[in-house]
Amino acid sequence: MQVKLSDSPKEMNHAIEQAKKQQSISISEFFTKNRHLLGFDNPLKAISTTIKEGVDNSLDACEESNILPEIIVEIKPTTKDRFIVSIEDNGPGIIKEQVPKIFGKLLYGSKFHKLSQTRGQQGIGISAAALYGQLTTGKPIKVISRIGEHKPARSYELHLDTKTNEPEITKDIETEWTRNHGTRVAIEMEGKYHRGKRSVAEYIKYTAVANPHAKLTLIEPDGSKIEYQRATNQLPVKAKEIKPHPDGIELGILIDMLKGTSSRTLQSFLTTEFSRIGSKTAKQICGEANLYPNARPSRIAKNEADNLLQALRNTKFIAPQTDCLSPIGEDLLERSLKKEFDADFFKAVTRTASVYRGNPFKVEAAIAYGGSLEKDSPAEIIRFANRVPLQYQKSACGITQSISKTNWKQYGLQQSGSNLPNGPVVIVVHMSSVWVPFTSESKEAIAHYPEIIKELKLAVQECGRDLGKYLRKQGKEKDEAKKLSYLEKYVPVIGEALNEILGNVNEEEITRNLKDTLERSRK
Amino acid sequence: MQVKLSDSPKEMNHAIEQAKKQQSISISEFFTKNRHLLGFDNPLKAISTTIKEGVDNSLDACEESNILPEIIVEIKPTTKDRFIVSIEDNGPGIIKEQVPKIFGKLLYGSKFHKLSQTRGQQGIGISAAALYGQLTTGKPIKVISRIGEHKPARSYELHLDTKTNEPEITKDIETEWTRNHGTRVAIEMEGKYHRGKRSVAEYIKYTAVANPHAKLTLIEPDGSKIEYQRATNQLPVKAKEIKPHPDGIELGILIDMLKGTSSRTLQSFLTTEFSRIGSKTAKQICGEANLYPNARPSRIAKNEADNLLQALRNTKFIAPQTDCLSPIGEDLLERSLKKEFDADFFKAVTRTASVYRGNPFKVEAAIAYGGSLEKDSPAEIIRFANRVPLQYQKSACGITQSISKTNWKQYGLQQSGSNLPNGPVVIVVHMSSVWVPFTSESKEAIAHYPEIIKELKLAVQECGRDLGKYLRKQGKEKDEAKKLSYLEKYVPVIGEALNEILGNVNEEEITRNLKDTLERSRK
Repeated sequence: MQVKLSDSPKEMNHAIEQAKKQQSISISEFFTKNRHLLGFDNPLKAISTTIKEGVDNSLDACEESNILPEIIVEIKPTTKDRFIVSIEDNGPGIIKEQVPKIFGKLLYGSKFHKLSQTRGQQGIGISAAALYGQLTTGKPIKVISRIGEHKPARSYELHLDTKTNEPEITKDIETEWTRNHGTRVAIEMEGKYHRGKRSVAEYIKYTAVANPHAKLTLIEPDGSKIEYQRATNQLPVKAKEIKPHPDGIELGILIDMLKGTSSRTLQSFLTTEFSRIGSKTAKQICGEANLYPNARPSRIAKNEADNLLQALRNTKFIAPQTDCLSPIGEDLLERSLKKEFDADFFKAVTRTASVYRGNPFKVEAAIAYGGSLEKDSPAEIIRFANRVPLQYQKSACGITQSISKTNWKQYGLQQSGSNLPNGPVVIVVHMSSVWVPFTSESKEAIAHYPEIIKELKLAVQECGRDLGKYLRKQGKEKDEAKKLSYLEKYVPVIGEALNEILGNVNEEEITRNLKDTLERSRK
Repeated sequence: MQVKLSDSPKEMNHAIEQAKKQQSISISEFFTKNRHLLGFDNPLKAISTTIKEGVDNSLDACEESNILPEIIVEIKPTTKDRFIVSIEDNGPGIIKEQVPKIFGKLLYGSKFHKLSQTRGQQGIGISAAALYGQLTTGKPIKVISRIGEHKPARSYELHLDTKTNEPEITKDIETEWTRNHGTRVAIEMEGKYHRGKRSVAEYIKYTAVANPHAKLTLIEPDGSKIEYQRATNQLPVKAKEIKPHPDGIELGILIDMLKGTSSRTLQSFLTTEFSRIGSKTAKQICGEANLYPNARPSRIAKNEADNLLQALRNTKFIAPQTDCLSPIGEDLLERSLKKEFDADFFKAVTRTASVYRGNPFKVEAAIAYGGSLEKDSPAEIIRFANRVPLQYQKSACGITQSISKTNWKQYGLQQSGSNLPNGPVVIVVHMSSVWVPFTSESKEAIAHYPEIIKELKLAVQECGRDLGKYLRKQGKEKDEAKKLSYLEKYVPVIGEALNEILGNVNEEEITRNLKDTLERSRK
């Protein structure tokens, strides 16, 4: 330290005292203390979060390698409040060097720096589960992996060092395994298993709904087995990796990109590092920013980059390409809903892609109404993000907010204030994006970006309008049927009255004529 | 890598392909992409989050050095959508080595590893603001600091490297400054300034309420100045640093503590590393865990540690000491409420300390009712955590949940379902703890730990019961007054009727007698 204690009066001592206490915080220490941020606030959530993270990884790995996923989830009790939670897949397997990092290092992964739709994105999930397991039971994390039939399967045990966020393999042996390739991770942890709302079983069921190409098996603590067979043998179209869209790009990112590019001119930088910028537009942008199209990107000063940013912001770009996204699709969404719910009305909508902070995203929504759905309760909301069901933090989620801030009375539903609408309704919403912004690392609720809220609202409103039409038509038909039955009831009386007034008319004929007229007037 | 591409069939290629994409993610990259987690989701929040983080740090630093805080916050527009946000304090100042780390490195600070109540805890806040400023304007962060009158003030400029989370001083000069000691940080950023609900002005106002010993000045973008003078020259009693309480300790933490301790015996480990364990209890615990009290802590095996944990869990400890907490206090809370709101009824409660996951915490609540408070709207909720007002994510907060899940009808308020109660009510809740668990790094809402929810509910219920009594009394008085006025109205009629029936009685005397009887019966 520059300042010596000897030459410092009292005030300086304060600054020096405080300086001594300053220190770095490792990311694992941080999340150990804040483990509720990762979805480990209680024993119930601990198990379901672990399974979510494991299954997400397995599905991603299989799809990336064009393998139809086959996933087995098992929860096995060891003591009254401890369980071994395991997730097994038929994915490509993991090479030895990567095993400790993938399962034992926070902020490590393959999806963070990539712009394409995946379930995992942060490189935190499964290592957080491992951290929690070790924290609550002290037991090592067990991983079996095999990368092909010509290689033996290997069985590993891992220890995580919280102080350094560095994992370590404590055991590594060859083992027998029936699978030719795949990975199995088993973590012992304190937990609680339950059924019903927000249960593991519910999570697996909704995962099957959004991933009809996956075979999923759940073995519960009591040994009972739930299986979801594939509804299709077709893998979803693979989401492509894209370049960032110029809409919503930020100065800091732009400066980093200018520094890091291998393009030799500003024009080629714009056309190759961004999507949706052609040479003509690139030239225009350079012109507006008062920069030469053949200027060297690395030589662009900060204030010049700022001008470039303003020019980008003033330019209208076409919407981002959508092959980086893998939505469920209107048809499949409606079919899934029909499979799960007994209702009279169904409607599904997939919106065109939109952009927030440079990230393309797409919203899908679907509504089911009537039938045997519960009449006197708030609408049931089912939320998905990148095909992953969201089970917790409903009220903090942008999806829920968009639904409750929509005026459902105009679509024929009851609603008090800004609450969810009431009635026999199920509303499903799916947001897919190259980067879903969540309200916390546990990925349970979508953050309230205005661009996203807008699309969410438009999607549910589109479904709502069709529901409104349907309900009005239903109402009208009911009204007319009522009117008709009234008239039919009184026609004979009118006939009788006419007979009395005019005398000597054929009552039966009058009644028949009146009925005919009525029929014709309704056509 | 162990596996060569040459000897690997197709399946192995998949594993190797995926391995190549794996990489570490720096914490700054992570939070740049996830900046909504830190409270920087939009230009409006960006400014208020920056000020919150800056003011929190200033208050903590002043109190730690026994200085009565004097803080000036200024928001100065530079362009239509850019502002320089600055926070200046009369704290102890910061020595040069610490300046870049405190303002430019995420996960760096003095409060994370310490068990005592402070506003900051994570070592993220102000560096996140700096990161956001640099990201949106590319401008350096400016810091002036002086550590005593015998040293000159220094002016620094900082640059943050997002890829490595390492800050750098780009400019460092001596400068003139009127203060003898203190720090001023100025960050230019994209932002939006607004007034009213959830504004910076509201934040400063509530901060003054919870920190009557601080002098606060806010200079708004249009130059208008709002000042809050001190209500007291007394610093709050300093929160002491404590050892963890044995309740809620976890195995992983216990194992780390056993490894890291300088105690030579298990018994002394228990009595010195934890609070509230005396020698007698320590011996009992060792006995129950089947361990020798003089065993070496570093030699305790994992399964033995597990036994020790079970023994700890089976032991009843006295509540943690509360000198690590600095609550506002019933009196001051009620006085602050009275100063801010014109109401008829006031009640404030400070609960005794409780523990969640080993962390002591205390809940305070206060209610104001009636007067000129708005009659036909939901109750106004004012939330504090460690004396910091919480302005966002109301519906995700444990405080709001505890209030809306309380049955307010029993206390005489209207309430529909699990919504907030309706009526002319303000409810203030303050949670103070050595570690407040928030639902995200932006520290806007308290996480839903069952132990905390329970205390929150008990605190508001305690206020609620008194409100109920007050309202029932009010209601009774109203009812009786009504009854009396009825009776008084009919007494003359009864007199008249009696006269008619009995004849020849003194109507006036009867009326007077009846009235007297009535009066007496009410006493």
